[in-house]
Amino acid sequence: MNKGFDVRPIGVVRSTIKRRGDAPKQGHEGAPDAWLEIEADVAEGIDGIAAGDEVIILTWLHLARRDELKVHPRGDRSNPLTGVFDTRSPDRPNPIGLHRVVVREVKGRRLLVGPLEAIDGTPIVDLKPALDRSDDS
Amino acid sequence: MNKGFDVRPIGVVRSTIKRRGDAPKQGHEGAPDAWLEIEADVAEGIDGIAAGDEVIILTWLHLARRDELKVHPRGDRSNPLTGVFDTRSPDRPNPIGLHRVVVREVKGRRLLVGPLEAIDGTPIVDLKPALDRSDDS
Repeated sequence: MNKGFDVRPIGVVRSTIKRRGDAPKQGHEGAPDAWLEIEADVAEGIDGIAAGDEVIILTWLHLARRDELKVHPRGDRSNPLTGVFDTRSPDRPNPIGLHRVVVREVKGRRLLVGPLEAIDGTPIVDLKPALDRSDDS
Repeated sequence: MNKGFDVRPIGVVRSTIKRRGDAPKQGHEGAPDAWLEIEADVAEGIDGIAAGDEVIILTWLHLARRDELKVHPRGDRSNPLTGVFDTRSPDRPNPIGLHRVVVREVKGRRLLVGPLEAIDGTPIVDLKPALDRSDDS
């Protein structure tokens, strides 16, 4: 494989979900709100984000396996083996999680957002505003 | 900043857009179709992707500046300086591009998709199926 790139955490998820087995597959499947703690050295980058905004969070799913190329979707062995790029499995060569959430509250460099299925301690690698078009993201 | 993670390209964009200045800001702003060439060692991961599918592409915007924390949105200096995490600027600490496209054709480990605003040579770091819900991504 080609030479890679260095992705640096810009913050961390603080959630009541502590274990991968306790995380819903998607945010809308009963996930709680969670705090995003943004690193001090990039905190200026959240200026403009306000309660009510829809935001896309990119995370690094640090517990994922990176050597999986086929999985049973949703971990259900009755689903046929499928290429990981045709699934939302966290197990994939670059385990980047994609989460669309609503900002509930902004406190300095902490953002309360939800619903979010990522577990406590998950590194955050980017935040972007969701665009109005449903096909933006 | 904390220790980073190694993101490895899983493929590359082949586009008629050759320079950053020629790229539309978003795919729906007149971007062309483009080919995604998936690396042989992870090509098994696209099994299941078919023409007509809506797919989210994550790219590494290799020409971006990583030291920007505030920008004028859309490069327009009449827009007030805004934190990069509240914009879709390619210039940001982790320059990961997010693109929702339709698959037009699959040829072995090459996918024709569009519309896509990424320039020729942009590394691809992940592919995911778009979910039905508009808030999936």
